[in-house]
Amino acid sequence: MRTIDLNCDLGESFGAWSMGDDTAMLENVSSANVACGFHGGDPATMLATCRAARDRGVVIGAHVSYRDLAGFGRRFIDVAPADLHADVLYQLSALAGVAASVGSEVRYVKPHGALYNRIVTDEQQAAAVADAVASFPARLSVLGLADSAIERACARRDVPFVREAFIDRAYLADGTLVPRGMPGAVLGAADGVAERAVLMAAEGVVRTIDGETVPLSAASLCVHGDSPDAVAMAVAVRAALTAAGIEIEAFA
Amino acid sequence: MRTIDLNCDLGESFGAWSMGDDTAMLENVSSANVACGFHGGDPATMLATCRAARDRGVVIGAHVSYRDLAGFGRRFIDVAPADLHADVLYQLSALAGVAASVGSEVRYVKPHGALYNRIVTDEQQAAAVADAVASFPARLSVLGLADSAIERACARRDVPFVREAFIDRAYLADGTLVPRGMPGAVLGAADGVAERAVLMAAEGVVRTIDGETVPLSAASLCVHGDSPDAVAMAVAVRAALTAAGIEIEAFA
Amino acid sequence: MRTIDLNCDLGESFGAWSMGDDTAMLENVSSANVACGFHGGDPATMLATCRAARDRGVVIGAHVSYRDLAGFGRRFIDVAPADLHADVLYQLSALAGVAASVGSEVRYVKPHGALYNRIVTDEQQAAAVADAVASFPARLSVLGLADSAIERACARRDVPFVREAFIDRAYLADGTLVPRGMPGAVLGAADGVAERAVLMAAEGVVRTIDGETVPLSAASLCVHGDSPDAVAMAVAVRAALTAAGIEIEAFA
Amino acid sequence: MRTIDLNCDLGESFGAWSMGDDTAMLENVSSANVACGFHGGDPATMLATCRAARDRGVVIGAHVSYRDLAGFGRRFIDVAPADLHADVLYQLSALAGVAASVGSEVRYVKPHGALYNRIVTDEQQAAAVADAVASFPARLSVLGLADSAIERACARRDVPFVREAFIDRAYLADGTLVPRGMPGAVLGAADGVAERAVLMAAEGVVRTIDGETVPLSAASLCVHGDSPDAVAMAVAVRAALTAAGIEIEAFA
Repeated sequence: MRTIDLNCDLGESFGAWSMGDDTAMLENVSSANVACGFHGGDPATMLATCRAARDRGVVIGAHVSYRDLAGFGRRFIDVAPADLHADVLYQLSALAGVAASVGSEVRYVKPHGALYNRIVTDEQQAAAVADAVASFPARLSVLGLADSAIERACARRDVPFVREAFIDRAYLADGTLVPRGMPGAVLGAADGVAERAVLMAAEGVVRTIDGETVPLSAASLCVHGDSPDAVAMAVAVRAALTAAGIEIEAFA
Repeated sequence: MRTIDLNCDLGESFGAWSMGDDTAMLENVSSANVACGFHGGDPATMLATCRAARDRGVVIGAHVSYRDLAGFGRRFIDVAPADLHADVLYQLSALAGVAASVGSEVRYVKPHGALYNRIVTDEQQAAAVADAVASFPARLSVLGLADSAIERACARRDVPFVREAFIDRAYLADGTLVPRGMPGAVLGAADGVAERAVLMAAEGVVRTIDGETVPLSAASLCVHGDSPDAVAMAVAVRAALTAAGIEIEAFA
Repeated sequence: MRTIDLNCDLGESFGAWSMGDDTAMLENVSSANVACGFHGGDPATMLATCRAARDRGVVIGAHVSYRDLAGFGRRFIDVAPADLHADVLYQLSALAGVAASVGSEVRYVKPHGALYNRIVTDEQQAAAVADAVASFPARLSVLGLADSAIERACARRDVPFVREAFIDRAYLADGTLVPRGMPGAVLGAADGVAERAVLMAAEGVVRTIDGETVPLSAASLCVHGDSPDAVAMAVAVRAALTAAGIEIEAFA
Repeated sequence: MRTIDLNCDLGESFGAWSMGDDTAMLENVSSANVACGFHGGDPATMLATCRAARDRGVVIGAHVSYRDLAGFGRRFIDVAPADLHADVLYQLSALAGVAASVGSEVRYVKPHGALYNRIVTDEQQAAAVADAVASFPARLSVLGLADSAIERACARRDVPFVREAFIDRAYLADGTLVPRGMPGAVLGAADGVAERAVLMAAEGVVRTIDGETVPLSAASLCVHGDSPDAVAMAVAVRAALTAAGIEIEAFA
């Protein structure tokens, strides 16, 4: 039987401000990318999110970010590699202890927002992230984009790297994402997202924005949790995968 | 041979701002209370401080604080106990992972500033701190004031509690500190601080502000690191203890 | 014709996190307490809120707070008066410039959350707030609770003080609020809030939690903007006041 | 008689952390670039700095920055122009009110650190800064580098722009700075800084790193305040300028 992981960003509330419907999303995913305080996720939210993930058997990953609450981690910051190493290590360590305190654990790291995008190509920042993960005593995976600087940096340090695909993003013929802001870059529930997820999981391919079918290797599918129809989309994807005989199971 | 621990607040720089002469203080103490980012101590400083402590064989403790960079953790904040629990857990977890990444470990927790003072009497906040420490997988001690709410809270949770004394603070006849702001509350190098340290370590007594000698039980002596004559005082205390045949050794 | 002011907290979003339905609330109130960045309200939100208030003819007040994003300004902080003076001055100055840049102005100051509650009784912090307002070049009013330390502090400095009442809070026979957390302290739409508002505005009285009618002097009524039925309540209050022949008009 | 302005970054302390010897620097400069809270400079420090500048007749400028306390504003942040506009407006407004409260005023804006460097070439961020300054009711100048994007953006909005030169930086033949990190880029007291200042002020030229003399138009000379020999250098520069018959006087 084929299996696939569904991952989702969770725990991104901060103090009095809430974001997303974490409870509903946790019913549908197998891996939770939990915010660690630098773009969202105050400590009490982290603790509550780890408890909720543990109760539903959802695997916990550290969703590390640039230090930027005001920008929600969506803005590139030209952090020196040594500082970025420490920032990433601090965040994943904090979450690891919080998770351990409720009998769970952090199994992987997924960079967030602008950091995620940056280390697709920035070799120095990618190396800093990989160094931080490699320096952590537990063996953690990194979740990210195929053929990226961070994938190469992880390979050089023997850090397991897991490729993910985006069910609600359009792809180009070379297997890369259509940049946000271009027409058709982001797909909604009506765009056959559930069918795309099944194609990705069952056959390892994606239909491109030009209608071609190209190979796409991914052990995890990213489901967004903060759009208005996030829960409906996650429910539909889970149902379609299950109907296609694909089991949803954490990669880590 | 008698032994005593000397502890000092370290790693309280933040970004471009530095505080204290950590390198010099590390030569003289056996336990380092390392700031965890909530009152001082950015991640890169934490990492550097853990490396330096490890290299000198100094034991690492988590110097946890209210979230208050602007106030350096010196202002009471009326945090709800559940939030304080999470804040303390987050900080000590972050430091634990950073320390582990360089082959060291966190062995104890010492609350900082206003939080330290508050949990002498505030049973709810003391319980929150003790809960956080008890929930952490590694068995950590708490360093604090004798006969305090935090000591009682630790006792109820089987969290080891270690009493400390202050070499540069005046004491009242009942063994409590002369409040800051009162004349003579804070002592300088010229006030026989080194001799007081020897009396505390060798005989377990302190000379009070009124000239009496009263018992004072402490396994650790706190040496301040951020006063102008901090290093000179630490050197003098270390020399006096050694001359008196007392070994300086971490309690943890 | 009688008039009354309706004031509401607005602009409390921060970065990616939104709070309340500001657009709808602005249609119903005459004074906007605009967050200034210390408990909510990033600069872009402040600018957008000032523009929206200006477009609807709503008067702008500075909703100043303790520096506490993580606690949304709802936690008491033991700030030294000189620091509180500077913190309040900084916030109201920032909003004043932002408002001026879009052709509007700040006309009053309303402390937020824990600071609001604290300066009902804390003479030192009340004096610091009043000093800050008095030191600002424009003549601003302070909006707050009757018979409070802040009212007295303003009187001593010739700072105009405006009393407000809460339409959705229960009152005791002495005219003070039933403390939050006690049963019946907070009222909902079904509790005759609109009728209470009319009584307050038209007759200057309030029905207490024990059924008595007591005098309540208020030139402004506070309408909360962040509860689920906030907009519905504001609409109902506005309609009831208008039907009773009371004009809604800013006090400032 | 010729005049020149000397400007210096001041008020960059934050809470318990201090930076630079502001009191000594204020004796030697005519314009103070006062930090506004985003890279340094808490409100109490801003208030104290404005008082001190006023007492010495030093003109006050707003030293605005990216929001980055941890990085001291020295890291580029990819802020959206609309957000940068609001961030700059917020900071200069805050300082303007603080200065006004002590009977002084803000007369100019000097971007700090990474923002300063970025808007030499980034047209969008330069436009955002210029928009913010232009939108402020008082007519303020911008202090920056000649032939920069920010100079052009100010010209388009009729915002006065004032060119500055750096007395302790080496120059290339085209009048631009030798990049930091290259050998000889930063000069010390022993490198004839005082003589360079006199040449700049009296003859409008600079000796380049290759020994040529090239024209350099600057109405203000920047003196750094946070290096170990900052005060000594400022004293020497002031003495040399005075000896050469050049009066030190604010440009604004």
